[in-house]
Amino acid sequence: MNTLQDMLNSIRPVNQELQDKTQKRLDNLTKPPGSLGRLEELARRYVTITGNEYPKIKKKVIYTFAGDHGVTQEGVSAYPKEVTYQMVYNFLRGGAGINVLANHAGVEVRVVDMGVDYMFEDAAGLIKKKISMGTQNMASRPAMRREECIRALTAGIELAYEAHKEGVDILGTGEMGIGNTTPSSAITAVLTGKPVELVTGRGTGINDESYRHKIKIIEQSIAINRPDRSDPLDVLAKVGGFEIAGIAGLIMGAAACRIPVVIDGFISSAGALVAVSLKREISQYLFASHLSVEKGHQAILEMIGIHPLFDLNLRLGEGTGACLAINLIEAGVKILTEMATFEGAGVSEAGN
Amino acid sequence: MNTLQDMLNSIRPVNQELQDKTQKRLDNLTKPPGSLGRLEELARRYVTITGNEYPKIKKKVIYTFAGDHGVTQEGVSAYPKEVTYQMVYNFLRGGAGINVLANHAGVEVRVVDMGVDYMFEDAAGLIKKKISMGTQNMASRPAMRREECIRALTAGIELAYEAHKEGVDILGTGEMGIGNTTPSSAITAVLTGKPVELVTGRGTGINDESYRHKIKIIEQSIAINRPDRSDPLDVLAKVGGFEIAGIAGLIMGAAACRIPVVIDGFISSAGALVAVSLKREISQYLFASHLSVEKGHQAILEMIGIHPLFDLNLRLGEGTGACLAINLIEAGVKILTEMATFEGAGVSEAGN
Repeated sequence: MNTLQDMLNSIRPVNQELQDKTQKRLDNLTKPPGSLGRLEELARRYVTITGNEYPKIKKKVIYTFAGDHGVTQEGVSAYPKEVTYQMVYNFLRGGAGINVLANHAGVEVRVVDMGVDYMFEDAAGLIKKKISMGTQNMASRPAMRREECIRALTAGIELAYEAHKEGVDILGTGEMGIGNTTPSSAITAVLTGKPVELVTGRGTGINDESYRHKIKIIEQSIAINRPDRSDPLDVLAKVGGFEIAGIAGLIMGAAACRIPVVIDGFISSAGALVAVSLKREISQYLFASHLSVEKGHQAILEMIGIHPLFDLNLRLGEGTGACLAINLIEAGVKILTEMATFEGAGVSEAGN
Repeated sequence: MNTLQDMLNSIRPVNQELQDKTQKRLDNLTKPPGSLGRLEELARRYVTITGNEYPKIKKKVIYTFAGDHGVTQEGVSAYPKEVTYQMVYNFLRGGAGINVLANHAGVEVRVVDMGVDYMFEDAAGLIKKKISMGTQNMASRPAMRREECIRALTAGIELAYEAHKEGVDILGTGEMGIGNTTPSSAITAVLTGKPVELVTGRGTGINDESYRHKIKIIEQSIAINRPDRSDPLDVLAKVGGFEIAGIAGLIMGAAACRIPVVIDGFISSAGALVAVSLKREISQYLFASHLSVEKGHQAILEMIGIHPLFDLNLRLGEGTGACLAINLIEAGVKILTEMATFEGAGVSEAGN
């Protein structure tokens, strides 16, 4: 715990002084002031996070964390559990949604086995950080031991540190884990204080009956484990998941290294909520990509205080929304660094 | 008028049969059905428009139409009129917002002089279709003669036909013309039947007093010219602009050639509204990129019946929003054509 606390203590607020300075530069470019709206906001925020006034986004990486969930025994997902490892292979072969969108945006995808119930051989693109063969069934006992949870967080933190050493310019989070909207809703209910039914959706697509059952299972998991809202690690351990812990760790490490990090949908945001609950300033390092169809997503983003870039009815996860957002952030940064100034282009400025 | 009517008659509804067929293919890919939301919609619509079931978007072109406006004499813009031609040079040198975003998305920008009050020498990337040195001041007389308006429309149509011959896969519209939110609001007010003040915004950024003045000028222009709502050409000629006519023409031509066309912000949408008012089916060929900050934009999109992809507080024009949207449509099409199927990837499908 000591190292984790040291690590959290090392996280500083972003450089707010660069905010105005960057906006002044943006206002000097050949366009009416503020007319590129949120693209300008993206550029400003990228500069305040990195401290780099003339940034260039070259190396872009999405980590897709995978884990299995004991709670799938309760029939909370439309898909069988094997799909988690099958999809990991699909990622490694390049056939999944995230691969297609990552290729489109020039982003590298790294798949992290945090706790899949399958022994993978070594493979290019696969990072092995397995803590166990999946979580316990949180409907009857804690999903993880606290010590396991900290190891999972630490694995994510280390990935961010390594990315920093490599010179990665922007990070994205993603995940794969059949059943993982269930722990995500549990985390959201506990950390936002909202009723379970208000933060629970239909995941990959379950019918009305299964949906009511899913809500009951989440309520039961919280009642049995009694996670302590004032101790985010306790919440993560008892009603979380290994891939969610990996995401939370990556985000914490990214904030410590001042790497901008883009969160994907609902499950990634549950990880972000844990990280921000541990240290409020982490929110300043986050970009929200899209508003997920999953009900609880809005509640998380409001609590973190970030506004999504897209509303495209996405609910796939994997990092797909993050990928689209990285592409847009890069566009915003290029506006700042590649456009001509009024003076340079010989264009008249606004009168009076 | 004969050729124009023939051309409109040649526009057919899109191939709706391919809608379900394409969705079936999308549902067979390794993701929960519908989980990529609007990306799937983009792919489906691209297929129904082009009729190509295995599309590949390679050649992407944005036409940025430029024109000057006599109504700037009334002081309706924050910028002096010279900025129109100065920005044309900025486009040609690659220093404007549209150039940066087009490079980012792999889109070619072609600038079209429809009616700028400046004689340009020949230049790479500049297409000369000048009808006149700018419109007349619509606050006291028709902006264009009907015959000029038809020539401007025809110029846009011809560009679409040429793009079709070249094998362009997707088109975007853009514009530059100091003062052009004024005619756009006038067109919107007349064709939607909404009061001028509800469809008039602050353009590049004018103060309260100038804003009230702008509304008065638009009301006066409509009162003096009495454009006939049932005759969209009359509306376009009397209270429109050369670049808006070029946009309307490009859209009409694109629909005739079955090329998907992405409309940018408010001014482009005013052009689209004229085109759709001439032939309702044209709306099926349109993608709306973003919701502009300009007040009247929402009213146009609702009337056309298309839903924007982004809400990023953009109000620059030039084609900047269209550029971002083309990038997203390409991503949607790649989802359709590059993802693995459940069977191909050995991934189990959803139970019951």
